[in-house]
Amino acid sequence: MGSRTVSINTDIGEGFGVWGVGDEAPLMDQVTAANIACGFHAGDPDILRRTCEMAVARGVSVGAQVSYRDLVGFGRRFIDVPTPTLVNDILYQIGALQAFARIAGTFVSYVKAHGALYNTAARHQGQASAIVEAIGLLDAGLPVLCQYDTVLWKTALDAGLTPHAEVFIDRSYTDDGLLVPRSHPDALIVDPSEAATRAVHMVETGSVHSVTARSVTVVPDDAATIAMCIHSDTPGAVDIARQTRSMLEQNGQTLVPIGGGRHG
Amino acid sequence: MGSRTVSINTDIGEGFGVWGVGDEAPLMDQVTAANIACGFHAGDPDILRRTCEMAVARGVSVGAQVSYRDLVGFGRRFIDVPTPTLVNDILYQIGALQAFARIAGTFVSYVKAHGALYNTAARHQGQASAIVEAIGLLDAGLPVLCQYDTVLWKTALDAGLTPHAEVFIDRSYTDDGLLVPRSHPDALIVDPSEAATRAVHMVETGSVHSVTARSVTVVPDDAATIAMCIHSDTPGAVDIARQTRSMLEQNGQTLVPIGGGRHG
Amino acid sequence: MGSRTVSINTDIGEGFGVWGVGDEAPLMDQVTAANIACGFHAGDPDILRRTCEMAVARGVSVGAQVSYRDLVGFGRRFIDVPTPTLVNDILYQIGALQAFARIAGTFVSYVKAHGALYNTAARHQGQASAIVEAIGLLDAGLPVLCQYDTVLWKTALDAGLTPHAEVFIDRSYTDDGLLVPRSHPDALIVDPSEAATRAVHMVETGSVHSVTARSVTVVPDDAATIAMCIHSDTPGAVDIARQTRSMLEQNGQTLVPIGGGRHG
Amino acid sequence: MGSRTVSINTDIGEGFGVWGVGDEAPLMDQVTAANIACGFHAGDPDILRRTCEMAVARGVSVGAQVSYRDLVGFGRRFIDVPTPTLVNDILYQIGALQAFARIAGTFVSYVKAHGALYNTAARHQGQASAIVEAIGLLDAGLPVLCQYDTVLWKTALDAGLTPHAEVFIDRSYTDDGLLVPRSHPDALIVDPSEAATRAVHMVETGSVHSVTARSVTVVPDDAATIAMCIHSDTPGAVDIARQTRSMLEQNGQTLVPIGGGRHG
Repeated sequence: MGSRTVSINTDIGEGFGVWGVGDEAPLMDQVTAANIACGFHAGDPDILRRTCEMAVARGVSVGAQVSYRDLVGFGRRFIDVPTPTLVNDILYQIGALQAFARIAGTFVSYVKAHGALYNTAARHQGQASAIVEAIGLLDAGLPVLCQYDTVLWKTALDAGLTPHAEVFIDRSYTDDGLLVPRSHPDALIVDPSEAATRAVHMVETGSVHSVTARSVTVVPDDAATIAMCIHSDTPGAVDIARQTRSMLEQNGQTLVPIGGGRHG
Repeated sequence: MGSRTVSINTDIGEGFGVWGVGDEAPLMDQVTAANIACGFHAGDPDILRRTCEMAVARGVSVGAQVSYRDLVGFGRRFIDVPTPTLVNDILYQIGALQAFARIAGTFVSYVKAHGALYNTAARHQGQASAIVEAIGLLDAGLPVLCQYDTVLWKTALDAGLTPHAEVFIDRSYTDDGLLVPRSHPDALIVDPSEAATRAVHMVETGSVHSVTARSVTVVPDDAATIAMCIHSDTPGAVDIARQTRSMLEQNGQTLVPIGGGRHG
Repeated sequence: MGSRTVSINTDIGEGFGVWGVGDEAPLMDQVTAANIACGFHAGDPDILRRTCEMAVARGVSVGAQVSYRDLVGFGRRFIDVPTPTLVNDILYQIGALQAFARIAGTFVSYVKAHGALYNTAARHQGQASAIVEAIGLLDAGLPVLCQYDTVLWKTALDAGLTPHAEVFIDRSYTDDGLLVPRSHPDALIVDPSEAATRAVHMVETGSVHSVTARSVTVVPDDAATIAMCIHSDTPGAVDIARQTRSMLEQNGQTLVPIGGGRHG
Repeated sequence: MGSRTVSINTDIGEGFGVWGVGDEAPLMDQVTAANIACGFHAGDPDILRRTCEMAVARGVSVGAQVSYRDLVGFGRRFIDVPTPTLVNDILYQIGALQAFARIAGTFVSYVKAHGALYNTAARHQGQASAIVEAIGLLDAGLPVLCQYDTVLWKTALDAGLTPHAEVFIDRSYTDDGLLVPRSHPDALIVDPSEAATRAVHMVETGSVHSVTARSVTVVPDDAATIAMCIHSDTPGAVDIARQTRSMLEQNGQTLVPIGGGRHG
C-alpha cells in the first residue's frame, strides 16, 4: 500500500426538473470525486449548479459523467451513436459542466461515462474512441475513469490519455474481471465491513476475489491511481463509503480528489 | 464616422439533427460575428462543432445565441422562466458552446439572446437580470448584444457589463425605436442598397429614420461599438450583408469581429 | 345536499423514466377520478399504461391532464403557445392517453389542464379557447374540469361543452374565489377534518368561506356536478381524501367517477 | 396480376417545429397510403394535424409511422429499448395519431416502423414482438407493413396479425432479399421507368431481380396485398411514384389505400 493515489467517486446530481435528487450531502461528504450528470441522461442546469457548489464546499473534485442523450431511459439503453456525433455529444456535456465548475471555483477534473455508454465503451471500439477523441480535443491531461484492460482503457492509453483504473466497492466480480450482473443474487456487496475489507485488498494488491474465489487483477501493477466507485443507489451507500474510507485511512491510505492538490 | 467599432452579426447554426441548415457559408463570408445556436432552441452538438469551425476559418467571432429551452417552438414563445433557473439555462448554453469554440481555436466572444428571450429581456427585469447575472458569473468582460435603452441595456450597464448597441439593417423602426412587427407590410428592408444606406446612416449618426420618417436614436453618443444585425432568413440576406459591408468600407468603416483583434 | 353528483380527483402518474412516482395506490384508492399526466409535463408511456390499469382496477375514471410541453419545468411555467398549436398539443396528449385507456378497458372521461395551463386558461382567452376547441373537435361530450366563472368556464359553456365546477379541498380561497397563493402561510388546508368539513359545506351550499371569512360561490346553483380536487403533494393527502370521502358519505353523498356509471 | 391488392406508401410529415416539411402535396397526390410520423423521430402536433388532413383530402389512408424516441437522431439509430417499454412507446404514438386521424374524418389504418426500428424488427425478436404486441393490444386487425420472411413478418403471422408484404420500388435488393445498403453505388433506383418496370414485375411475380440478377421472392404466393414503398427523399420520388402508378394501372392494377374502401 502506499504509493498509489486513491479516490472514491459516486454518481450524483441525477435528478431532472421537479424530479429532484434526495439529500446527497451525506454521500458527498464521504467521496472525493463527484461524477456529475451533465444533462443528457439527468441533470438540469439548476442541479448542475448546485451540485458543483456542493462539491467545491467539500473539496470534492468535479467529474463529467457523460451519457447518451436519453432522459427517458436514464442513459441505460445502448444507442448506436456514430462516433463523430458521440464525440460532439461528449464535448457538449463537458463544456456545459465546465461553466458551472468554473463559477463554483473549480474545474472539470475528469470524465466518466455513464450507464450504457460506460458498459459499451468497455468493448465497443467506436464508442471508446469517441470518448478518447473528445477528451483529447479538449484536454489530453483530463483523466478518464474506466475498468482496467477494457477497450476504453487500451484506447485511452494508446492515445496518450491517463485512464484511472476503476474498481467497484459495492459489486462482485466474475472471473473475467467483469461485474456480476445486477440480476444475480450475489451482484451487490451491501455489508459495509465486507466492502471496506475488499476495498483495502484491492488497493493493496490490485486484485479482487471473484464470485468463484479466484483472484482477478483489477488494477495494473504500474497504476499510479485507483478510482473506487460506490453507486449512490446501492442500499447503505453512505455507510459503505464511510467504512471504506475509514478502513483505508487506518491502513495509511489517504483518499484524495481526482486531479489532486488542485482542489485543496 | 470612424471612431466607432462596427461588427455585423447573424443567427447561424440553427438546425437540429436531420433538419440541417442550408449552405451558410455565403452569409458567414459577409459577417464578422456569428450568433451560434447553443442547443436550446436549435443547434445540436454536430452543428455547434461545424459552425464554430466555419467561423474560425473566416476570422468571424463566435457568439452564444442563448434561448429558452424550446426546440419545438424554436425559442420564439415567451416562457416564464424564474430568474435563477434562467441564469443557469444561459450558463449551460454558453458553457457548451465554449467547448466547441475552444477546440476550434477560438472562444465565445459575446452573448446574444434569441427570439422571445431577446424581445422579453428588452422590457422584463427578471429575464434581463438573468442574462446579466449569467454573464457576470462567467466573465464580466463578455459583451452582450442588445438594443439601446432597453431594460437589458440598462441592467447590463448598471452591472458593469459591456452592452453593444444592436441595430437591424433589414428592419424598419417605430418612432419608439422598436422594430416594426413582421406582420406589418413595411417591416422588412429587403433592398440591399437601401439597407446599406441606412446602415451607413446609423453608423454615422447613431440614428435611424422611423417608418414615419422621424429620427430615432439607436446608438448612444458615447457608444464605442455598434453591432449590426442581419437576419439569416431575410430574403436576400447575403446581398444585403455584402452591400452593407461594401458601402461601410467605402465610407472608411472597417467591419470587425466582436472581441476585435483577438481573432486575427 | 343530494342531487349533485360529486367526484374527487387527483393528479397522478407524474413521474418520468427512472424518476418514478411513489406508491400511488393509497391515494388512488380514495379518489374517483385520476388526472393522468400525458407526457408533456410528466408521464412516460410505461407510466401511462400502469396508471390507467391502476385506475381501471378501482373503477376510477381516467382523465387527461393536459399541459404545456415542458418536462423540465413540469408544466408550471406559462408558455405563450399560439392557440392553434395549443389545440393540437392538447389533441396529441388526449389521443395518446386514449390508447392506454382503451387497452386498460376504459376510455378518457374528462380533460383537466395542468399547472400553468390550468391557471392561465382561467383568465387567458386564447388558451381557454384552445382547450375548448380541442375537446370540441374530439368529443364535445367530454367534460372539462375548471373553476366556476373563469374564462375557461364561460368559454366551455358558450361552446356547448360541459364544464365541471372544480373546488379544492386542500386549499384556502380569496374573496374573489381564487386560490390563496402557496407562498401564503394559510394557503393549504392540511387538517383532514377541517378539509372534510369544508368539502361538505361546499357540496351543500356551493360556497366556501374565504380567508377573510366571506362566503364565496364556487359552484353555481344549477350545477349538476362538483369536481373536488385534492393535490397529491399536499401533506397527508390520503388522509384528507379519506376523511372527506367518509364525511360526505355520512351526509348521504356518494362519490362517483366522472362519466358516471360507465365505469361501474 | 390482378387478384392482389396493391398500395403505394411513403414517409411523410417528418418535420419538427420550425423545421418544416417541404411541399408534400405532389407526393401525397401519387401515393395511396401515408406513413405519418408520430412525434418520436419527427412530427409535432401541428404537422400531424395538417398531414392527416392532407391525406383525407386525397383519400389516402393514414398509417402510424412509429419510431424510437430519438428526435436528434431521426430514429435512425438503434436503441436497445426493452420490449415492454417499446410496446408502450408504440401505443403512445399510435394513440396520438388516432386523435388527429379521427378529427380529420378517418382513422389509423396500418402501422409501419420507421428507420432503425424497421430494420431492427426485421431480425430482432424482442423488438418485433413489441410491435406485434402493441398492435394486438389496440386492434389485431390493423395491418403492419414489413418485409416478407423477416422476424417481424413471422411474428406478426404467428400472432394472427395481418402483415402486408412491403417492397421498395426505389431500391435494389441483395440475393438475400435485403436492401442494398445506401452506401453502395447501385443502392437506389432513380430512373422512373426502370422503377415502374420493376414494380410491375414485383406485383406480377412476387419477385425482384437482385443486383446479381437472381430472382428473389419478396411477396409470398398467398399474399393478398402488396405494400409498395417509395422514399420521399429519393431523388425524383414524385416522378417515380407517378410512373409506377401509371404503368401499374396500364397493366390493370388499381392502387388502393390500405384498409381499402373504408376511405372512399
